[in-house]
Amino acid sequence: MKRIAVLTSGGDAPGMNAAIRSIVRIGFSRNIEVIGAHAGFRGLLEKNFNPLLPRDVSGLLERGGTILFTSRTDGFEEEEMQEKAIKNLRSEHIDGLIVIGGNGSQSGSLALSVKGFPTIGVASTIDNDLWGTDYTIGFDTAVNNAIQAIDKIRDTATSHARSFIIEVMGRDKGFIALDSGIATGADIILIPEVKFDVDKIIKNIEEGMKKKKMHHLIVCAEGAIRARELEQIIRSRLDIEIRISVLGYIQRGGSPTRFDRIIATLFSERALTELVRGESGKLVGIKDNQIVLIPLGDAVMKKKSIDRSLYKIVEEVSV
Amino acid sequence: MKRIAVLTSGGDAPGMNAAIRSIVRIGFSRNIEVIGAHAGFRGLLEKNFNPLLPRDVSGLLERGGTILFTSRTDGFEEEEMQEKAIKNLRSEHIDGLIVIGGNGSQSGSLALSVKGFPTIGVASTIDNDLWGTDYTIGFDTAVNNAIQAIDKIRDTATSHARSFIIEVMGRDKGFIALDSGIATGADIILIPEVKFDVDKIIKNIEEGMKKKKMHHLIVCAEGAIRARELEQIIRSRLDIEIRISVLGYIQRGGSPTRFDRIIATLFSERALTELVRGESGKLVGIKDNQIVLIPLGDAVMKKKSIDRSLYKIVEEVSV
Amino acid sequence: MKRIAVLTSGGDAPGMNAAIRSIVRIGFSRNIEVIGAHAGFRGLLEKNFNPLLPRDVSGLLERGGTILFTSRTDGFEEEEMQEKAIKNLRSEHIDGLIVIGGNGSQSGSLALSVKGFPTIGVASTIDNDLWGTDYTIGFDTAVNNAIQAIDKIRDTATSHARSFIIEVMGRDKGFIALDSGIATGADIILIPEVKFDVDKIIKNIEEGMKKKKMHHLIVCAEGAIRARELEQIIRSRLDIEIRISVLGYIQRGGSPTRFDRIIATLFSERALTELVRGESGKLVGIKDNQIVLIPLGDAVMKKKSIDRSLYKIVEEVSV
Amino acid sequence: MKRIAVLTSGGDAPGMNAAIRSIVRIGFSRNIEVIGAHAGFRGLLEKNFNPLLPRDVSGLLERGGTILFTSRTDGFEEEEMQEKAIKNLRSEHIDGLIVIGGNGSQSGSLALSVKGFPTIGVASTIDNDLWGTDYTIGFDTAVNNAIQAIDKIRDTATSHARSFIIEVMGRDKGFIALDSGIATGADIILIPEVKFDVDKIIKNIEEGMKKKKMHHLIVCAEGAIRARELEQIIRSRLDIEIRISVLGYIQRGGSPTRFDRIIATLFSERALTELVRGESGKLVGIKDNQIVLIPLGDAVMKKKSIDRSLYKIVEEVSV
Repeated sequence: MKRIAVLTSGGDAPGMNAAIRSIVRIGFSRNIEVIGAHAGFRGLLEKNFNPLLPRDVSGLLERGGTILFTSRTDGFEEEEMQEKAIKNLRSEHIDGLIVIGGNGSQSGSLALSVKGFPTIGVASTIDNDLWGTDYTIGFDTAVNNAIQAIDKIRDTATSHARSFIIEVMGRDKGFIALDSGIATGADIILIPEVKFDVDKIIKNIEEGMKKKKMHHLIVCAEGAIRARELEQIIRSRLDIEIRISVLGYIQRGGSPTRFDRIIATLFSERALTELVRGESGKLVGIKDNQIVLIPLGDAVMKKKSIDRSLYKIVEEVSV
Repeated sequence: MKRIAVLTSGGDAPGMNAAIRSIVRIGFSRNIEVIGAHAGFRGLLEKNFNPLLPRDVSGLLERGGTILFTSRTDGFEEEEMQEKAIKNLRSEHIDGLIVIGGNGSQSGSLALSVKGFPTIGVASTIDNDLWGTDYTIGFDTAVNNAIQAIDKIRDTATSHARSFIIEVMGRDKGFIALDSGIATGADIILIPEVKFDVDKIIKNIEEGMKKKKMHHLIVCAEGAIRARELEQIIRSRLDIEIRISVLGYIQRGGSPTRFDRIIATLFSERALTELVRGESGKLVGIKDNQIVLIPLGDAVMKKKSIDRSLYKIVEEVSV
Repeated sequence: MKRIAVLTSGGDAPGMNAAIRSIVRIGFSRNIEVIGAHAGFRGLLEKNFNPLLPRDVSGLLERGGTILFTSRTDGFEEEEMQEKAIKNLRSEHIDGLIVIGGNGSQSGSLALSVKGFPTIGVASTIDNDLWGTDYTIGFDTAVNNAIQAIDKIRDTATSHARSFIIEVMGRDKGFIALDSGIATGADIILIPEVKFDVDKIIKNIEEGMKKKKMHHLIVCAEGAIRARELEQIIRSRLDIEIRISVLGYIQRGGSPTRFDRIIATLFSERALTELVRGESGKLVGIKDNQIVLIPLGDAVMKKKSIDRSLYKIVEEVSV
Repeated sequence: MKRIAVLTSGGDAPGMNAAIRSIVRIGFSRNIEVIGAHAGFRGLLEKNFNPLLPRDVSGLLERGGTILFTSRTDGFEEEEMQEKAIKNLRSEHIDGLIVIGGNGSQSGSLALSVKGFPTIGVASTIDNDLWGTDYTIGFDTAVNNAIQAIDKIRDTATSHARSFIIEVMGRDKGFIALDSGIATGADIILIPEVKFDVDKIIKNIEEGMKKKKMHHLIVCAEGAIRARELEQIIRSRLDIEIRISVLGYIQRGGSPTRFDRIIATLFSERALTELVRGESGKLVGIKDNQIVLIPLGDAVMKKKSIDRSLYKIVEEVSV
């Protein structure tokens, strides 16, 4: 394998640039030409390819976003598109592809590999929702972003003895909510994986008020309940000063952390090694502190569960 | 004057703790006893007073929020309340009061001073909307918080070639929007002080698109237009990928910056000096880089204007 | 077990406060009284004990350092001291002890447990040098601190086309150097575990200069070579603009990261559970992403190795 | 004037990139071609010129360092060099020059303007040591960097009840030391402008120890005394746990603050306007919150003084 392409797809995640950098530089060290495809799978369809050299990726470790740009994968589930992509790759004498992205994007990787084009995925999404890997590139930074924001909100909560509902990202999964909630001392954490009972929340707050707790902090994943909705429910049942904050896009950007820079480097090295070795249809992730290869079909189709022991701890520390 | 009280009132602002610390420590150095009133003017009404010693304010320079707690001033416009506050202060042999807060709070200071109780205000609000002072404690940190958030959002905007509307604080004033917009390279800044024309915004974006501008960044003060509303307007007229982010409470907290820590120290020293010297009914602020005393009536009643030259610069740098 | 003590010992590490908080709050939930010992083992000798309640540990998750204070363990290797400590603990009806600290401190824990006092260690040191655990509380924050500092230095290195030697903490171990070096794109990383060859370093730089590399970044652990010494060696052999920076204590403090807050919470919960269950002489750590118990003798005596595969990657990405 | 050059010179400062961006974009808006000279005055001598367009300066507001590179001005005091620079500028039909830099660099600007080449300086150095301007681009960020570092060190100082000497930048001037010392609650601040008395420092510490002060924090400018030297003096006279930290280059880099981004934008706009209007031999700075023009001769030759009232406040807050 002499020439490979790399692309970033789906929601941008901090550390994607670090991954691109490693692929380009390690590729260069191993005499493999690395071509960047522009804006995800769309770059394959539009033949928007650019060769990448070590100097092109200088200074990238610390930068959020992706210099290759990204896009949604809408439409790439059609076989026609996939075949066009492969044709375009082949016409440029590209022998393999590395896809840096999350769940939706890795479905695209799976499709290409099934159609015979050597493709390896690198697990990267702030949502951390790929099965088979404990972490994905971008998750650690996103949670740290959320934590820094919630720490600031806590200053106001404490100063005013005012409760807050903070809505974090996570349509289907509560990974960000769970980690950011525990790390900021949330009294209540609501995630899509665990059904919640409004009565219990109300009771929890009432009991806290009896214990002279000055304020309550609720962290909810957007997929569990929207902050606005929960606010109205609580206001309708309790006489309490409560405010909401929807963290939104500030979770997604920024300079990646140690964890994300390191796993971006390790995932990339492994992806390149495996692709050249002849592997295809696999996702590179980390499991039990080891870099692992996960069949793309499993990574994309199976449901990843949250750590219930982590969830249970919340009740005990919130006293 | 042997014994004074200090309180923080209204929205919390980073640097309020730094101001409390300076008053307590400088007071101690000058043999003046400093009493903290709990939760703003409410502490005066409820006689919730605590003496503060140098060790009580250790480590406060770097901490957001206010250890004295704060509250809205609702009700304190009634003379009965004001008289009760003065009676309570006098009954504790407190001879003067320093009020750290913004516009609404300094109306309370004015009322007390008019009624004959020696009161000095310290200008502190993230909104920067007190007349007569170029800056208020908390504004610099709040804008830096907004900037760091917008820098992160820009990573996503750039990676997806997606436009963003970012709503920052400012119901009546555009100070935060103007500074954070210029500092992050916003293409369009909307503030309550300047009427805006939707047609012009649309035209501006269209022209940018013609020039192959990848994305547009709009920063709006909440008092100019809500992000959600503007999004709907733009979506109804342009075929463009656009998202919104409402920064909200994350602007308010966090460790204060150099600027806010320094002016908190200087304002406090001056407030204490003037109060002891016999001044009353004044606000301490900064004008043309000098610490100044402003009549509280002016500070509260007059309208502070934004710097129009700053506003005009936006069009030229956004090309 | 109804009453336990907790102490922090050795170098302070970000996340120690988070660990104290969890022990106090979970203890409270489980009806166990938690007593804080002041300034490490010294608190046991001086009978400097204070009961800790949930409100005493409010707001601690985000704060670096340790509210219980800490001290070196010098002298605690004497049996007389250990016996005095146990006597003092027993006289206060304290039935168990949790020691939050690193290598030297856990030797103290081991000694107490050998003498029959139920003691559990919680792995916490920025050096990450306890055998049997992949990570210790504080390491992730320390490396992130180093990374943020090196990112800043890189701005100057790039702007001046000037090389830099950056000395990070690590007398015996290269964990901080290795992770911070890889995460910031260091061209050369020097750690105590790997003998380095000055000729090879010189050659590496010369080759970089031939390839028009603008600057070189060397990250060294203090235990491999001091930056000052390496600077003199390089200056004596190459005509190159080179500067040094010794990061020192800025690596140690600051608000803990997600990772350190989460493991501090999990380690604490486990330590408390095991202590109450009757365990002693064990260290709580994390191995392969699972919270584990490690015999204190092993944790303290065995040598923890760095990840050589990580070390090898440096050469390939530095092109 | 149709074509101007811009260069950055001397030590890099956060906000230089923001200044370059504004010059390029405002120049473009006004139909003035902007040429970047590479690595300071050296670029003039080597005719290393590159035209800069709005897209070349995208995303620069948030980035430290300088994309134009910089260098020391050594040798540029020779008339021959200056004449060569002017000849090279003229040969490229460049009609004016903007120099972004500090004291040494603005001497170069002065020389060029004296020789008849239209040159305007933009005050930018972290040292803040240009006469006539209250602030220079980069100072606010540098002090905020120092503050964040000292806040971290304070965690360790407090946890160990250990004193610290922190050495900050400032060979001739104490601006960084004064502001960072006050903002972090230093007990003692040593600056080159104020002679200090070792006996008084020792006495100050002894008195603090009597008052059960747990630790002392000394911030010194490198030009007042080196931390290492002061440490030895104190150790020789007091039995005290003391450590040092030399902040060094971490003060210089990083993303610029609100203040530096805003003044970079305003200074640039003014510099461009004045240059085109026919001005020369002037430095753009800020005085009493107004953007001002300062004769370069004064800016470079006159000595800027620190604010003594700020210095005096230290003693009162350190109790």
